[in-house]
Amino acid sequence: MGDTEASVSAKFPQWCSPVHRRAPENEQMLEILGRRKSAKFECFITPGYMLVKSRETETTSTPPVTTKADFRPWVDQDLQDNTEATAREDEDGDWVDSNEKEDIPHVPYSPPRYPKETMLERSKDFYTLMNQRRSVRFISPEPVPREVIDDVIRTAGTAPSGAHTEPWTFVVVSDAETKHQIRLIVEEEEEVNYRQRMGDKWVHDLAKLRTNWVKEYLDVAPYLVLIFKQTYGILPNGKKKTHYYNEISVSISCGILLAALQNVGLVTVTSTPLNCGPQLRLLLKRPANEKLLMLLPVGYPASDATVPDLKRKPLNEIIVHI
Amino acid sequence: MGDTEASVSAKFPQWCSPVHRRAPENEQMLEILGRRKSAKFECFITPGYMLVKSRETETTSTPPVTTKADFRPWVDQDLQDNTEATAREDEDGDWVDSNEKEDIPHVPYSPPRYPKETMLERSKDFYTLMNQRRSVRFISPEPVPREVIDDVIRTAGTAPSGAHTEPWTFVVVSDAETKHQIRLIVEEEEEVNYRQRMGDKWVHDLAKLRTNWVKEYLDVAPYLVLIFKQTYGILPNGKKKTHYYNEISVSISCGILLAALQNVGLVTVTSTPLNCGPQLRLLLKRPANEKLLMLLPVGYPASDATVPDLKRKPLNEIIVHI
Repeated sequence: MGDTEASVSAKFPQWCSPVHRRAPENEQMLEILGRRKSAKFECFITPGYMLVKSRETETTSTPPVTTKADFRPWVDQDLQDNTEATAREDEDGDWVDSNEKEDIPHVPYSPPRYPKETMLERSKDFYTLMNQRRSVRFISPEPVPREVIDDVIRTAGTAPSGAHTEPWTFVVVSDAETKHQIRLIVEEEEEVNYRQRMGDKWVHDLAKLRTNWVKEYLDVAPYLVLIFKQTYGILPNGKKKTHYYNEISVSISCGILLAALQNVGLVTVTSTPLNCGPQLRLLLKRPANEKLLMLLPVGYPASDATVPDLKRKPLNEIIVHI
Repeated sequence: MGDTEASVSAKFPQWCSPVHRRAPENEQMLEILGRRKSAKFECFITPGYMLVKSRETETTSTPPVTTKADFRPWVDQDLQDNTEATAREDEDGDWVDSNEKEDIPHVPYSPPRYPKETMLERSKDFYTLMNQRRSVRFISPEPVPREVIDDVIRTAGTAPSGAHTEPWTFVVVSDAETKHQIRLIVEEEEEVNYRQRMGDKWVHDLAKLRTNWVKEYLDVAPYLVLIFKQTYGILPNGKKKTHYYNEISVSISCGILLAALQNVGLVTVTSTPLNCGPQLRLLLKRPANEKLLMLLPVGYPASDATVPDLKRKPLNEIIVHI
């Protein structure tokens, strides 16, 4: 294949333009489009949906009491949603940024274009900024302007998502009592983890230290951001509408959120307390279609914060040019 | 719980400081630490690993010939790695930014701190920048400086990852023939998808249009970035070392990559051609521990690029303050 073929315009030529962009030009075209629409309707049109409302489905606002014996089976069952696995078979391909079945009109897109030198400068500046990011466990209790947090979440909400479902909920906890409840739930689960790994005798020896499962930052950080993925929606007929790629979408959104935090000088540590998800979901009164994906304590770094002196892989270990 | 408790320093008090931060202070401490280390060694110390080298494990550099009958089973089997599911049972909790079993020393961390007004300005500017991002399918064939692409990948590599495994490989394809091979593989898979959904008669009617599975941008975009997740490493004893949370880690990295692209005025469209993963992995000679997660065509937007006129959810639909 030569340069000529490679330089063809990326746009669809007119004879295969998407139906929502141009009016059909002859009768044969109309017939084809008519069939296309009806087939699409039968196969996978999704005419809107409403989320399950928390207070309609939850009968209690406090976590259920569970014994150690029944704790894990309940957790594991609740976590199974299978949306990622299903997506791999059914929904390969581009993520649509819109529900194209609704024939949303297209509009011109002309983002700013920078000269080459400016691009290079901007790319290096952003790398320098992001390369300073570290996971920080030593967070200052100083208050942080709520407007900044709102802007950070707003920025995270610009992420792309499968079928433009925007399947994320950001629960921002600043209430001291709720933060403490979260800490108790997370620490209990951490202790269970360590006891299972280490054995009871070992944990007893270490009881005074509590090094591994004590998370004071959950009390101290001015904000805890709990990021939930919405695994499905509810159609008007009551059936579930799977949100394909919801975990990947929400993780991408989290990457943009981390960039936004770094950009304003705030720190966090990425944590995935998935086994605590069901209890935290009930504590925070989130509906059953939402699963906890990440918990981020957010604030300024403590004045004496430290981080492990680690290195990142050099570029040539993560990139391959072909 | 009152303000006093909430304002306690987030640092561990000295009596429960992590072992890698301070020397033990008495004999009892030494004994405890000795036991702790040996227990950790038995349970989950992981003394380095090497990745599977592609040319040692692949016996062919071209995709195997598959009939339609055996195509999908082979694909689905190859995709199963179960690392995400396993992680939920075994590896709850914070992501360590370092392999703490190796006692990496801590260093002070003092990132820049901005005055409140500067924070607000920076948070709004970054939101404005990111809110202009759109998934764009109409990409210009104009060349893009390779140094900018390298900086973007370098930036993506600053993402956090479970146990600091940095489980990502970014394959950047600019070779025209390789891009075309990728296009053929992706379009064939897309056609299979549509035929399965629509039925052969329907697809025959639409054959002239080819609207749904033609992806000219795979030839036209100056770069195709194929992002692979490394699902496991290989220990010196030949056993596999699972990379927990590799898909979430790589997706977070992708979010930072999208921010870096937007920052320099380049566009892409997020796609997840997972069923093509095995064929593309062989084409690009990636080792068996790597699975394709995303394919991003990257370039300037075409001068006449359009995007669907969609809206994003307002802040109050994605945030909950508690």
